[in-house]
Amino acid sequence: MKALVYHGPGKKQLDEMPKPALREATDAIVRMTRTTICGTDLHILKGDVATVAAGRILGHEGTGVIDEVGAGVSHFRKGDRVLISCITACGKCDYCRRGMPSHCESGGWILGNTIDGTQAEFVRIPFADTSLYPIPATVDEDAMVMLSDILPTGYECGVLNGAVKPGDTVALVGAGPVGLSALLTMQFFTPAKIIVIDLDDNRLEVAKKFGATATINSTDGKAVEKVMAMTDGKGVDVAIEAVGVAATFELCQEIIGAGGHIANIGVHGTGVTLHLEKLWSQNITITTRLVDAVTTPLLLKTVVAGKLKPLQLITHHFALKDILKAYDTFGNAGRERALKVILTND
Amino acid sequence: MKALVYHGPGKKQLDEMPKPALREATDAIVRMTRTTICGTDLHILKGDVATVAAGRILGHEGTGVIDEVGAGVSHFRKGDRVLISCITACGKCDYCRRGMPSHCESGGWILGNTIDGTQAEFVRIPFADTSLYPIPATVDEDAMVMLSDILPTGYECGVLNGAVKPGDTVALVGAGPVGLSALLTMQFFTPAKIIVIDLDDNRLEVAKKFGATATINSTDGKAVEKVMAMTDGKGVDVAIEAVGVAATFELCQEIIGAGGHIANIGVHGTGVTLHLEKLWSQNITITTRLVDAVTTPLLLKTVVAGKLKPLQLITHHFALKDILKAYDTFGNAGRERALKVILTND
Amino acid sequence: MKALVYHGPGKKQLDEMPKPALREATDAIVRMTRTTICGTDLHILKGDVATVAAGRILGHEGTGVIDEVGAGVSHFRKGDRVLISCITACGKCDYCRRGMPSHCESGGWILGNTIDGTQAEFVRIPFADTSLYPIPATVDEDAMVMLSDILPTGYECGVLNGAVKPGDTVALVGAGPVGLSALLTMQFFTPAKIIVIDLDDNRLEVAKKFGATATINSTDGKAVEKVMAMTDGKGVDVAIEAVGVAATFELCQEIIGAGGHIANIGVHGTGVTLHLEKLWSQNITITTRLVDAVTTPLLLKTVVAGKLKPLQLITHHFALKDILKAYDTFGNAGRERALKVILTND
Amino acid sequence: MKALVYHGPGKKQLDEMPKPALREATDAIVRMTRTTICGTDLHILKGDVATVAAGRILGHEGTGVIDEVGAGVSHFRKGDRVLISCITACGKCDYCRRGMPSHCESGGWILGNTIDGTQAEFVRIPFADTSLYPIPATVDEDAMVMLSDILPTGYECGVLNGAVKPGDTVALVGAGPVGLSALLTMQFFTPAKIIVIDLDDNRLEVAKKFGATATINSTDGKAVEKVMAMTDGKGVDVAIEAVGVAATFELCQEIIGAGGHIANIGVHGTGVTLHLEKLWSQNITITTRLVDAVTTPLLLKTVVAGKLKPLQLITHHFALKDILKAYDTFGNAGRERALKVILTND
Repeated sequence: MKALVYHGPGKKQLDEMPKPALREATDAIVRMTRTTICGTDLHILKGDVATVAAGRILGHEGTGVIDEVGAGVSHFRKGDRVLISCITACGKCDYCRRGMPSHCESGGWILGNTIDGTQAEFVRIPFADTSLYPIPATVDEDAMVMLSDILPTGYECGVLNGAVKPGDTVALVGAGPVGLSALLTMQFFTPAKIIVIDLDDNRLEVAKKFGATATINSTDGKAVEKVMAMTDGKGVDVAIEAVGVAATFELCQEIIGAGGHIANIGVHGTGVTLHLEKLWSQNITITTRLVDAVTTPLLLKTVVAGKLKPLQLITHHFALKDILKAYDTFGNAGRERALKVILTND
Repeated sequence: MKALVYHGPGKKQLDEMPKPALREATDAIVRMTRTTICGTDLHILKGDVATVAAGRILGHEGTGVIDEVGAGVSHFRKGDRVLISCITACGKCDYCRRGMPSHCESGGWILGNTIDGTQAEFVRIPFADTSLYPIPATVDEDAMVMLSDILPTGYECGVLNGAVKPGDTVALVGAGPVGLSALLTMQFFTPAKIIVIDLDDNRLEVAKKFGATATINSTDGKAVEKVMAMTDGKGVDVAIEAVGVAATFELCQEIIGAGGHIANIGVHGTGVTLHLEKLWSQNITITTRLVDAVTTPLLLKTVVAGKLKPLQLITHHFALKDILKAYDTFGNAGRERALKVILTND
Repeated sequence: MKALVYHGPGKKQLDEMPKPALREATDAIVRMTRTTICGTDLHILKGDVATVAAGRILGHEGTGVIDEVGAGVSHFRKGDRVLISCITACGKCDYCRRGMPSHCESGGWILGNTIDGTQAEFVRIPFADTSLYPIPATVDEDAMVMLSDILPTGYECGVLNGAVKPGDTVALVGAGPVGLSALLTMQFFTPAKIIVIDLDDNRLEVAKKFGATATINSTDGKAVEKVMAMTDGKGVDVAIEAVGVAATFELCQEIIGAGGHIANIGVHGTGVTLHLEKLWSQNITITTRLVDAVTTPLLLKTVVAGKLKPLQLITHHFALKDILKAYDTFGNAGRERALKVILTND
Repeated sequence: MKALVYHGPGKKQLDEMPKPALREATDAIVRMTRTTICGTDLHILKGDVATVAAGRILGHEGTGVIDEVGAGVSHFRKGDRVLISCITACGKCDYCRRGMPSHCESGGWILGNTIDGTQAEFVRIPFADTSLYPIPATVDEDAMVMLSDILPTGYECGVLNGAVKPGDTVALVGAGPVGLSALLTMQFFTPAKIIVIDLDDNRLEVAKKFGATATINSTDGKAVEKVMAMTDGKGVDVAIEAVGVAATFELCQEIIGAGGHIANIGVHGTGVTLHLEKLWSQNITITTRLVDAVTTPLLLKTVVAGKLKPLQLITHHFALKDILKAYDTFGNAGRERALKVILTND
């Protein structure tokens, strides 16, 4: 079968690879029909993610059709259309039972990381019963792909951890695909003001279409000043960091109001300065989270109900065989005005 | 009247000062019968707290008897025995209504800070109805003084913000009076293991008497290793920082388990490094808080019920006129094996 | 001044009454500019509310202008435009501090009940600082009147107590003004399905315009069957009772799913049967609540932000001097297709 | 093997039955070493539980040793000592994922109900990985048996659902084994006052030893009056119903304070009157729950830590072969002063 393989820092190829086979009774083999590329895949390709060995098939998102199931799989059978979660959950360990499968003792984020992933014609999914979801007949399959990772990530790490409430003023720092996922899903809780901050005017325009009530291009270094002016000098109730660099986490600390929440989504490569000399007395809550993807069933209900419209996150389509082109487009997201790209294998 | 007055960095005196008078309809004048000294008072005397001007009477804790009330005070009258909260709450502003009077628009921590405090024969208490509590007849007055600040601080900033639950493993870093207050009150929620870490063997001995299930003297730099050994390498559920320096906050980050809470109580003078490069994916919650003292009625109930025994926090007694000696003892807490000192003015 | 006065069961009159005067330092006198009539006023007129004595001026909703304040009022002054809360809160007692001013020891629902109310040219408001809200310049005054009682009632007793969550299926039983208030505000939390049940087709039509995803006229006795068909036989996540009779509470018990919430808003005159023989094992939560009106500031923010549009609840306008006509219209709500009526006194 | 078999209303026998065999890949066969009798078993024997057919082996509690596991069981192997949960959880269905395995689509309470149970030498446990727990070496096996059902039931249905908080006043109505389990575990949250109400002086004496701060024998019909006197006429914060008849649920309604919680544990055979005519305005929360047994790992930690001492719930021991005598003792609990009886099969 065809698959996108990582061959060490800077190197990837569309290779012919053996079709995966069942290993454990709880496995399923899924024939992929849709997949996509994540910002994390770009990090891997830079060599930033030490757990990914050369020879690994990348990808942790997508949809497909069940090709084969192990004897221990009870909820799916051959032919079922399924959504693949980026988080593999054994459903049995302490972490899974505490609702934190991101730290599952035998799962977590392993697809396209420590085991072969979804940017391929077939993929082996461990613990299929607790790591796959049936796709309702009425839902567009492209939309489903957005539920593999970015929508649960924006919702869980940004919106739920940020504890967005009706009437709140929320600042979202970073309007990439995950930030925009937080933007879409924070509206489940009806904040009064949503201020989106980014360096890219195109993304800020998209943010306005997606529901931002105000946008700030922070290139001029005046974002703090502007946010304070918009909040009568009190700062925001919730600041969501969706970039992953020190400067944006710093910004969140400067604009957060007393009693506020800073919800980190960004993947950070270095430490940051936490200004406890100022914040110790400000009744602040700061959260971090690797997505658990436990809200996937809930998000699916909101998609079926028409309350969440994931298709607007998708800007480009390619055939799976053209995945190198897709990487090129997604890797130059600014120039290409790309959000998410869909890879089709029908 | 006699009062302990701050005269600029390094200078304090027991001065003769005018007795305070009512200024607003919501004020009360309290004749002080007990007060104490807080670690914060020592910080003020070093010149670390910029809001305190020379000439200020220090102190934000204590008990007394109502001497006079303004026309707008409805819940107290002359002769009532009262507990003074370290937090003055107007009860009307947004912050007060949100349960966060630490940031009250016309109150907060003002006693012995921006207005004259309690280390005196009399004190003026603004917003008396919402900043004082009646003392039940059966309760020892010394015990009450511990409810002015340190017990609510340990409970709210450490235990409640740390979200201590039955069965948890909790690490308490710092066994000074406020840390010990967190130690006493965390037991309201029945953690399974309580590991107390400090540099002072005497304080660790006290911590054992107060309920610690294990203690670690971190002088040898092996605290992280020892905590990990005690938790099967998983780290703790809750880490409470009760010191206020970078090294102890660093320690909390190293011992916190996935999904854990770091609750900061310490007053920090500088920023610290937040290791987002490691913690971004660890589902951690970090909280800061200036005590709101909203749990004072609850704590009072637990004292009356005999579930919380504040007297064990008190090691020394002095007459108010000997307050300079009391400062000397409290300022050399290690040498004197001092926790809290009570100043009496009967 | 003119005022609507209750003269015993079945009797009301627009009388000339003395203008109220300040009694306590914390009082304000408000010149009424808008008021309305509540279903509760109709109950009073039937003689159902024992606490209301003959001679009482009715009404607990409205807006106005501050005419005079007592010495203890700090947040308002003559000329301020204000919203009157149906709940009077002292801000000091245990209940107020616990966020439950509905049971305030010296307040609660007293306006138009145990003290004179708002269906008059002037009204005395006790504890003005904690019982009135400033009206932002940009907001329509008619809209504000809906925040005195029905919107907080629908939101607190129905939506918050029902714990409506994104993706939920909610059944609302009763589409009168308070039920419709719950309907509008439950959408703050983005339920997937909203099923509204009533006996009146006109009200069901209104419910559809207000966001219901399905409506059921329960006249035919098949509501249970229909709800079960809409929920794959599982029942609903949340059932909100907004009528106040045994049959509708019974209906809620029949349609509630395992793990669900029944939130009672209705004012009940008799006991009902609780089917513990069936529900004991169904992990059900049932709540009751007299509105606390603690969410008024939050609701105000959502009105300012355009997320909540209260004007759609208003169907009729009258001058205050025509209040008897207004009662006639409101008292025949079905025939008149009336929801809320506004009484103006400019 | 020997097993206690139900032969229709009023009839039970210690029969020779075939040893159970694996049916599904996720099954385990457990050799029983300890079991016990539940009040529910007595109900079954009266013919009250329609789902139990004649020929059924009773029992849903106990400990044992793994004898054999199916191919899909990954967390246990032959020879492991295990605790059996009264709730069988598939770990995959919606209810299991929502933390509500009491309503598991293919599990729930099935042992000794719809499939053969634990009062036998061997038992088949479906979904073994998510329905069994390893027993730590240091823990007394008798103590473990109390974790199969009554301790999680008292804790989840009574204490957690009742939302017991530090400083609360709690009334426990019914001091049988499950009520006493609630009594022991509510102390995890340090209520200030615990009032236990029962008709049996012996049980009230036990309650005192277990931590009740006051007891009331309600035989004289003055329980309401006495509770009100103990609470300054305000009623209790939490009332836990642990009997299951109309009179005790009625009592809970009469003693509950404004804003309070009524947590039902009792198994009710008939409906009760809910006094909405009084409670509609009292901000009450009423909960029901079939135990989910999701807190078993937490309770186990508190047992290991010595914070919970289950052995005090055990009054009698029998060999499994003498189970008919054990039923006789347990069935005459008042006369025999019996709480829980342990059946041993070593």
